[in-house]
Amino acid sequence: MPIDSKSMGNTVGKLDFRTAPARYRHWSISIEGPVARLIMAVDAGSPFAEGYELKQNSYDIGVDIELYDAVQRLRFEHPEVRSVVMTSGIDSMFCAGANIRMLGSSSHAHKVNFCKFTNETRNSIEDASKHSGQIYLAAMNGTAAGGGYELALATEYLMLVDDGNAAVSLPEIPLLAVLPGTGGLTRLADKRKVRRDLADVFCTVEEGVKGQRAVDWRLIDEIVPRSKFDERVAEKALELAAESDRPEGRTGIQLARLERSESENEIRYPFVTVSLDREARSATLDIQGPVDAVPAGLDEVHNQGAGFWPLAVIRAMDDALLHLRFNEPTLGTLIIKTSGDGARIAAYDRLLEQNRSDWLVREILLYMQRTYKRLDLTSRTTFAFVEPGSCFVGILAELLFAVDRSYMLNGQLDALPAANIRLSEISFGALRMSNGLTRLESRFLGDSAGLEKAQTLIGQNLDALAALHAGLVTFAPDDIDWQEEIRLLLEERASFSPDALTGMEANLRFAGPETMETKIFGRLTAWQNWIFQRPNAAGESGALKLYGTGKRARYDRGRI
Amino acid sequence: MPIDSKSMGNTVGKLDFRTAPARYRHWSISIEGPVARLIMAVDAGSPFAEGYELKQNSYDIGVDIELYDAVQRLRFEHPEVRSVVMTSGIDSMFCAGANIRMLGSSSHAHKVNFCKFTNETRNSIEDASKHSGQIYLAAMNGTAAGGGYELALATEYLMLVDDGNAAVSLPEIPLLAVLPGTGGLTRLADKRKVRRDLADVFCTVEEGVKGQRAVDWRLIDEIVPRSKFDERVAEKALELAAESDRPEGRTGIQLARLERSESENEIRYPFVTVSLDREARSATLDIQGPVDAVPAGLDEVHNQGAGFWPLAVIRAMDDALLHLRFNEPTLGTLIIKTSGDGARIAAYDRLLEQNRSDWLVREILLYMQRTYKRLDLTSRTTFAFVEPGSCFVGILAELLFAVDRSYMLNGQLDALPAANIRLSEISFGALRMSNGLTRLESRFLGDSAGLEKAQTLIGQNLDALAALHAGLVTFAPDDIDWQEEIRLLLEERASFSPDALTGMEANLRFAGPETMETKIFGRLTAWQNWIFQRPNAAGESGALKLYGTGKRARYDRGRI
Repeated sequence: MPIDSKSMGNTVGKLDFRTAPARYRHWSISIEGPVARLIMAVDAGSPFAEGYELKQNSYDIGVDIELYDAVQRLRFEHPEVRSVVMTSGIDSMFCAGANIRMLGSSSHAHKVNFCKFTNETRNSIEDASKHSGQIYLAAMNGTAAGGGYELALATEYLMLVDDGNAAVSLPEIPLLAVLPGTGGLTRLADKRKVRRDLADVFCTVEEGVKGQRAVDWRLIDEIVPRSKFDERVAEKALELAAESDRPEGRTGIQLARLERSESENEIRYPFVTVSLDREARSATLDIQGPVDAVPAGLDEVHNQGAGFWPLAVIRAMDDALLHLRFNEPTLGTLIIKTSGDGARIAAYDRLLEQNRSDWLVREILLYMQRTYKRLDLTSRTTFAFVEPGSCFVGILAELLFAVDRSYMLNGQLDALPAANIRLSEISFGALRMSNGLTRLESRFLGDSAGLEKAQTLIGQNLDALAALHAGLVTFAPDDIDWQEEIRLLLEERASFSPDALTGMEANLRFAGPETMETKIFGRLTAWQNWIFQRPNAAGESGALKLYGTGKRARYDRGRI
Repeated sequence: MPIDSKSMGNTVGKLDFRTAPARYRHWSISIEGPVARLIMAVDAGSPFAEGYELKQNSYDIGVDIELYDAVQRLRFEHPEVRSVVMTSGIDSMFCAGANIRMLGSSSHAHKVNFCKFTNETRNSIEDASKHSGQIYLAAMNGTAAGGGYELALATEYLMLVDDGNAAVSLPEIPLLAVLPGTGGLTRLADKRKVRRDLADVFCTVEEGVKGQRAVDWRLIDEIVPRSKFDERVAEKALELAAESDRPEGRTGIQLARLERSESENEIRYPFVTVSLDREARSATLDIQGPVDAVPAGLDEVHNQGAGFWPLAVIRAMDDALLHLRFNEPTLGTLIIKTSGDGARIAAYDRLLEQNRSDWLVREILLYMQRTYKRLDLTSRTTFAFVEPGSCFVGILAELLFAVDRSYMLNGQLDALPAANIRLSEISFGALRMSNGLTRLESRFLGDSAGLEKAQTLIGQNLDALAALHAGLVTFAPDDIDWQEEIRLLLEERASFSPDALTGMEANLRFAGPETMETKIFGRLTAWQNWIFQRPNAAGESGALKLYGTGKRARYDRGRI
């Protein structure tokens, strides 16, 4: 059965991102002292969908879900790990990249979503190396082709066995008529700073580059004879571990299986409820404030572990965003609401801010940052509605600046007192967008006085007019207009072309500086999405479709 | 007759970019003291192709070719002009943007090329304001919609008449299901720094925003009552003129009609010959060095005017690149060669470098910069072949760093002595890419020692091995391999998917920092090209196709 938008689409829970090492089919983790080894040995007979085999350590979304889980667990469950060796468990092949038959038979939507998720996972690997003190190293004990080399590019140090055969390559263009879609071109140009003419050559040579030339061209950092490979990798891993700032002698927390219950139009997690409105084509994420008072101190935070409210909220949000992305493609508008006690959140916020140097608090804030980035990058319209009873305070107030627009009710509703919002320090440093700025810096790019003003408002309860005046919400309709205005807003948004909205949002959300991440999700992804639609790649006679059939693709020769 | 790739395609010279004010149908220029007025009054009955009328100051490629010409002529022919008022000659409509029926009936290729050219022209308007001392002002005496507002966004100061009707708008998304394709989203976010939520609102409100709200939202700089409009515009134009660094009392040069002669497989300009190889799907630009010795001084440069060798070369290159882009879409590889006396070019180079503060020399270098950028942005593979008899020196050596790859023959050919290349100061500052870096800074992004080394080589003749060793050329095959290597190279390149190459080149050419220009051509253009292919816009039931028919577009609701 080919993977199409239907088979990837309408059944709630079809794609489940929850897994754990005991259930992995394709990866294993082994830890020795400060070094973890993340070993890829893809089970060819366990593809995520039917119709292809995962030969040669090629991957599909199922393989990548495990990788995502492994990276997360290393961070939270293993404070002792200071460097991570990514390597292969099969002979002479590090990783062959995304499975081509899977890509060839996938819908446009699945290809795009698959690439986005794999990109986010690779970015999370870089995030772990840079900010978590878990520094990744690629030990390529065999060839790394296409997405396999791109996976290695996401690590900080690339070692390749020098056996006359093992090569690194990006054969997508000559072989498949698509781009290396998981950041490869951007990381060549901007991370490894490979000279552009050499990068051009490299990307058109099907067999890739090996040996000393791969080092000379900056494609890898080191070649090592097979006889010394394991020893040298172990040595390098310890060297990287010595650079880590992870603390000694701490105990990790367990990421227990995320609770989730589903009905036709609702998904419930601890602290997050998602309501699906299929007629209006929207989903509402209601985020609930903490039930318990803030923990007395850091020890209690560690004891609570995955139950600690901020972490529980983020885990639920992360899963909900992934679920909606893959399993609910026609719900084009995501609505963020909150409910609960804002004062209680403020206390959690202070605890986080005061303990940013603790390894676990750092992990929680980094995970929050990654999840909020996933929201920034979602190809759905995002609105926030601030109503009486809500608690947009601190880490939840940040959501107001992540969405495309925010509406704050100026008045009462259902006898509840009028809503307030409240800023905390957290919005001025700890949570950054892909462009490297805080969301408030991005928001006030043309209005530095507005940014300074916002900082003076930290800790104050702001009603609708105060928030509007400070530029912190988009509109503040009064209670007479509220219902009607929201109804019209959602109807209008749902009437527009989904594609045009996706393109618009991708362009308006990232003002200011560009980083490798914004380049990957802006430039590279946009071109790849274009190519994924072109007959030269995806048509019946396109290269992606014909791969492996022995037939040659026939190209329209017009250059566009 | 709908505009398709054929009607826009195969006839040599079908699209001719050469024009002059006496031949304009849509624009007029009037000059009073230091202020020029560029007046758009589109002749609805003179569309470039059949099948649509250019009502309401809407434009097509024919209108934009005139604008491009006007901007160029103001710079070269009118040193006295210090500010330029862009305004409309028709009632209550500044400009309605790109003609929608034209877009709806155009091929994907024409839409993409049309947008790229209009983007380059708007960038050239900003270039004139920033670097030429001709500061543009938009005097919107009526509504500016879609591309009309984007045109205004390319100026430095936006004035809108406050008559209760005139508005600025970007109605593309609600009305046409495409993006504002001429930089609008990028200039909202990054030039005018419009707050993202307000930008989101603005881009979905069909009727746009007018009056004080347009000022408050940073969409325009000033509203002016109709009764005071002309007076206030004149005042502001003089104010901008006062900021200009154009010199007083100079005489312009005439941009006489560019000579061009064509045969089936060749186009000849002064100093540039383009040979077309349809079987190999390549075009070779042979750029010839100067025939005459360098002028004795600046006066002689001004006397020679458009005949001055560097300017003559650039005019020919510019026209050739546009011609190939629009009229020869299947020639996927552009080959740059040179022939002539390198020592003579070096003398021209010194003259340019020593007189960079002269207004005309400045214009020539800025035009060269724009044309080389057009080469950077071409959606064709670009190679340079350095052979005996060539003259890759100074401003022509720069071309080696603009192309995707360069090949330098290490040895003799046809009894000619082996080739040398030679760097000059010009490659280290005067000619910048869209990313703001020189091409050598981009090239050596990961190798600062390489960049420093290159600077020490200024003025030296470098043979093939020296150039290779310094990282200035990609490969240096010897004379035995040369013919075969080049043949295989061109065959191989021609065998790849044109789309995949376009995407790859767009990603590898612009490492390092991003600017508004690179964002426009990277992120925005890539998304627009994607949307231009999507059935929601371009399909038979898509919004772009159905516009004006009274039928409503039917959208696939899947979000991707």
